[in-house]
Order: sequence, then structure tokens, then C-alpha cells
Amino acid sequence: MDKKAVIALGGNAIIKPGEEGAIFEQFVHTRESLGGIEELIRQGYKLAITHGNGPQVGNLLIQQMAGIERGISPLPLGILNAATEGTMGYMIEQSLQNRLHNAHIDRKVMTIITQIEVSADDPSIANPSKPIGPFYTEAQATKMRADYGWTIVEDAGRGWRQVVASPMPISIPLADDIATLVNDGRIVIACGGGGIPFFVTDDGELEGFDAVIDKDFASALLAELIGADLLVILTAVHKVAVNFGKPDQRNLDTLTLDKAKAFLEAGEFPAGSMGPKMRAAIHFLERGGNEVLITSIEHVVDAMAGKTGTRLTR
Amino acid sequence: MDKKAVIALGGNAIIKPGEEGAIFEQFVHTRESLGGIEELIRQGYKLAITHGNGPQVGNLLIQQMAGIERGISPLPLGILNAATEGTMGYMIEQSLQNRLHNAHIDRKVMTIITQIEVSADDPSIANPSKPIGPFYTEAQATKMRADYGWTIVEDAGRGWRQVVASPMPISIPLADDIATLVNDGRIVIACGGGGIPFFVTDDGELEGFDAVIDKDFASALLAELIGADLLVILTAVHKVAVNFGKPDQRNLDTLTLDKAKAFLEAGEFPAGSMGPKMRAAIHFLERGGNEVLITSIEHVVDAMAGKTGTRLTR
Repeated sequence: MDKKAVIALGGNAIIKPGEEGAIFEQFVHTRESLGGIEELIRQGYKLAITHGNGPQVGNLLIQQMAGIERGISPLPLGILNAATEGTMGYMIEQSLQNRLHNAHIDRKVMTIITQIEVSADDPSIANPSKPIGPFYTEAQATKMRADYGWTIVEDAGRGWRQVVASPMPISIPLADDIATLVNDGRIVIACGGGGIPFFVTDDGELEGFDAVIDKDFASALLAELIGADLLVILTAVHKVAVNFGKPDQRNLDTLTLDKAKAFLEAGEFPAGSMGPKMRAAIHFLERGGNEVLITSIEHVVDAMAGKTGTRLTR
Repeated sequence: MDKKAVIALGGNAIIKPGEEGAIFEQFVHTRESLGGIEELIRQGYKLAITHGNGPQVGNLLIQQMAGIERGISPLPLGILNAATEGTMGYMIEQSLQNRLHNAHIDRKVMTIITQIEVSADDPSIANPSKPIGPFYTEAQATKMRADYGWTIVEDAGRGWRQVVASPMPISIPLADDIATLVNDGRIVIACGGGGIPFFVTDDGELEGFDAVIDKDFASALLAELIGADLLVILTAVHKVAVNFGKPDQRNLDTLTLDKAKAFLEAGEFPAGSMGPKMRAAIHFLERGGNEVLITSIEHVVDAMAGKTGTRLTR
């Protein structure tokens, strides 16, 4: 029986803070992020790859706004997410093909544009709180509220920022096809940027929705639906910690499902960073997953060898 | 034995001349362009869909340039093509899903990001001549030549315009997978914008290439490689004509391969419009295709019923 994994790359591993997103930089970072993927393949895993897109969508949003002055209509968020599924999917796909070529590994890589269903009744829709894109001045914020109906809030003294809904993913219509392709040995890049959100109308039609699905939740759902054993979540730290940033910070090598839930309820994992990753990990383990590995891109190869990272099991 | 077809939608069927590309307009036109696809499905065809992206990439180029002033690096043409494979693939996919839902037809639709191999020795690379994007002033043209190394030429008194190479597609690495999916009944959207061009370096690595592959050539190659019987090319006119625009213009109902080649050699089909479509049609028929139908989006349902359009056969 083959082992199957989903590995979730972060969008800010590809455009790092302070960078303009020049394409050669993005390709360099994409290449750097593939060590863990090669290692998974060497260990015999069949594989799907997901990725974030925060900085990339942020750049697209700025370009959309700049383009208005030149007569080009800005595209909505769902469409921009589809754009990054194309651009980042292509970069990851080609970079991985080259890495596998040089490692004499013969596996095909495919990128599939992925719509993900959310509920029109998701509580986050009435209360958008996920910040996206650049910071604005108060005057810009007022104009954008008026022109586009955006929700814009002040962000802790740093300026004004658009916030959008971040509904939970409830189904991935192409999951069965992705599973078949992965089972056949294809490395499938899917659910980029958390997938393109849609909901089903009363008439049964699909309708795109300008929101952002958390890419770790989307990855956990994909891992569940394709029957993966392992979910690898890459983040900025090499291990999950409790008492994070305090003198008694304790890094965790392993974590059981019950312990993870207890720590989460005790508020150990903040909402903007480790919280959603831990929720995604718990979701996957509760729905039949065997193992979740959380670590950094830099340490993922060592983590795969059992030398670092945090492993969650049921 | 199932019938199999490739249908090539034009990018300027989705953003029409003079439009800003507002998303609701693009969705309206996408929906309008699906009648022929539904008809092919009703007639029992298994199906791959390709599409152009001229106006969409043009808009992205303008947004890229506008974004420079706001500190965002412009993405190169190959990446922009990948973006439109995502955005347009998603729009066509979701619009088609809704159309099929309303027609009570149960078929899944998938969009696959498609790289296409070109030769680094393609003669068009030394002599780029495919115009893309907006018109520039002479001063802008001079600056862009200096800043980006673009080739910019004066376009018949209308201003200056970037020209890029348009190499011939020579292989589609995922063609076998696309064929399997189409044979299994999936409607696969692929080769958007003519595909993302790459060439193979001396080391055997894939390297992206800032060029534009003609979407009709890419469609003909896809049709050949997946063993399609029929290639449908949608364009601005409902029939191919000889003596086009002259008093003795003659619209053609049918055309044999030999006749088509003779007309092409006689200069009946101009390079910027019907010429490449006719070359693509000839390529497909010479490599085993049965039939090519060339018509307009507005007339494609009638053309499928044999009432209009131009049919090419061997």
C-alpha cells in the first residue's frame, strides 16, 4: 500500500517580506522550497502540493488599483486567486520538474485549478476579518469603501487595510479526480491560495465569492478527501511551541490529538499564526489522518528524517 | 467508439473591442460562448476546450506597467499567460458547470495549467513580430526598450507596440494525461492562451520563454495528440471566404485539404487572421484529424447542425 501525503507551502516562502516579488527571486525561493517535496518522494509518498498566495495576491491587488487609472477594470478577489493558482502553480510545477529531472526521478507534475465550496451562511461572511493586500491611508480607505463597497479597518496604528471573509471550506468538487491522479503517481498541485471559493445558489448554480479560504484548512480538507496519511504544514518556525515567546517557551517534538486540542483551548496558539494550522491539523486527524508534521521550509528535510519538527498523531 | 473534439474559443470573444474587461462583462460573454460546447456534448463528443487570451494579457500588461510606480515588479509574459490560464480557465469552467447543470447534463469540468514546448531555434525568436498589449507613445517605447529590452515597433501609424516571438508548439508534456481525462468523460480546459512556452536547455531543464504561442496551432497540436476527430475553431466570421472583402467574395461551405493548401499558397488567407487558423486546420488534417469546423460563436450551433460554417476534410 502506497503512502500518500499533502504538503502545504506558504505563499510568503516565495515572496519574502520586503521583496518586490521580482520573478527571478520568486523562482529562486520556489526552488529552495522543494527540498521537502523531493524527500517525501524519495520516501515513497504519492503527493499533492498546496500553497498560499498572500504576498502574490497583495501584489495583484496593488496592480489592479494602479491599472484603474489606465482604464482597466480591476478583477475581483476570486479571479485574482485563480490567477495565482496559474502563476504559482506553473512556477512550482516547472521548478519541481527540473529538480526531479536533476535527481533522476521520473514523476509527472500537474497543476489543477481548484474551486472550493463554502457555505453562504458561514459566520465569517457577516464579520469579515482576514486582512489582505496593502495598507492604505484613511483617505484612500474612505474612497475604496465608497467605490468598491470594501470593508476596510484600521490595523493597529499601521494604516487602513481591507478585510475579507475567510469561510471554512466544505467540499472540493474535483477531489476524486485529484485522488485518482495522485494514486496514479502524478504529483498534483491544487487548492492554491486556499482554492477559489464558491457557494451553491438556491437554483443549484455555482457562484464565485470574494473571500479567502485559509490554505491550511483547504489543505487539511484535501488531505482528508484524497485519503492521505500525512499532512505536512510548512511555516516560519521549525517546531510548534507552548508559552511561545516567553522565558519558559517549550518546543514540542510530538503532540497527541487530545493534547493539541487542550493547548488550543487554553489559547496557546494565536489566531493569526499557529492557531489555524493547529485547527487544520486537528481536523485532519479527527477525520482519519495518521500524522501531521509542522515545521519550517529550512528544516523540513531534517524533520522528515525525524530530527526536528513537531509531529501530531491521533 | 466515442467521438472526441477540441474546441478553440477566442480571447476577444470574452473581452470585446472597446470594453474595459469588467468581470461581469467577461462572465456574460463567457456564458454566451458556450452554446457550441453544449451542442458538441449533446452530440456525444468527448471534449477539450482551449481559449485565446489576447485582450486579457493586454490588460495584465497595462496593470503590470502601472504597478511599477507602486513598487511592484512586473511579471514576465510567460507568467502572465499562466495567470490567464487560471482566470479564464476558472471563468469558463464555472460558467460551463452552470450551463450543464441547467441542461441536466452530468459532466465534470477541469482546468489544467498547460506548458507547451517550443524550439529554442524557432525562426520567430530571432524575428519577433507578434504584437501584444497596448499602444505606446514613441517616448514610452524608447523607455521600455531601455528598461526591459523589449522589441517595440511602430504599428502602421497607430503608435508603438511590443512585438514578441510566436514560436511553433512542438510538444505538450501533459497531452497523455489530458487524453486520459477526456476519454474518461471529463471536459478539460487546457492550452489557454496557446499554453505557456518553454524550451529544454542543454542540461535537460525546462526554461520558460517570453513568447506567445498561437492558440489555434496549440489547439491543433492538442487535437492531434489526444486523438480528436474534430477541431472546432471559433472566429469572427461564420464562414471562411476567398476573395475576402472584394466584390467577388465567395464563402466556402466545404474545403478539402488540397484546396485549403492551394488557397493558402495563393495568399487567400491573410497572416494576421485566417492564415494561422487555416495552417492549424491543415496541420490537424495532415496528422490524422477527420474534420475541422471554422465558424463564429454566434453561428456555431447552426454550424454543428450543418447549416453554416466552413468544414474542412481530408
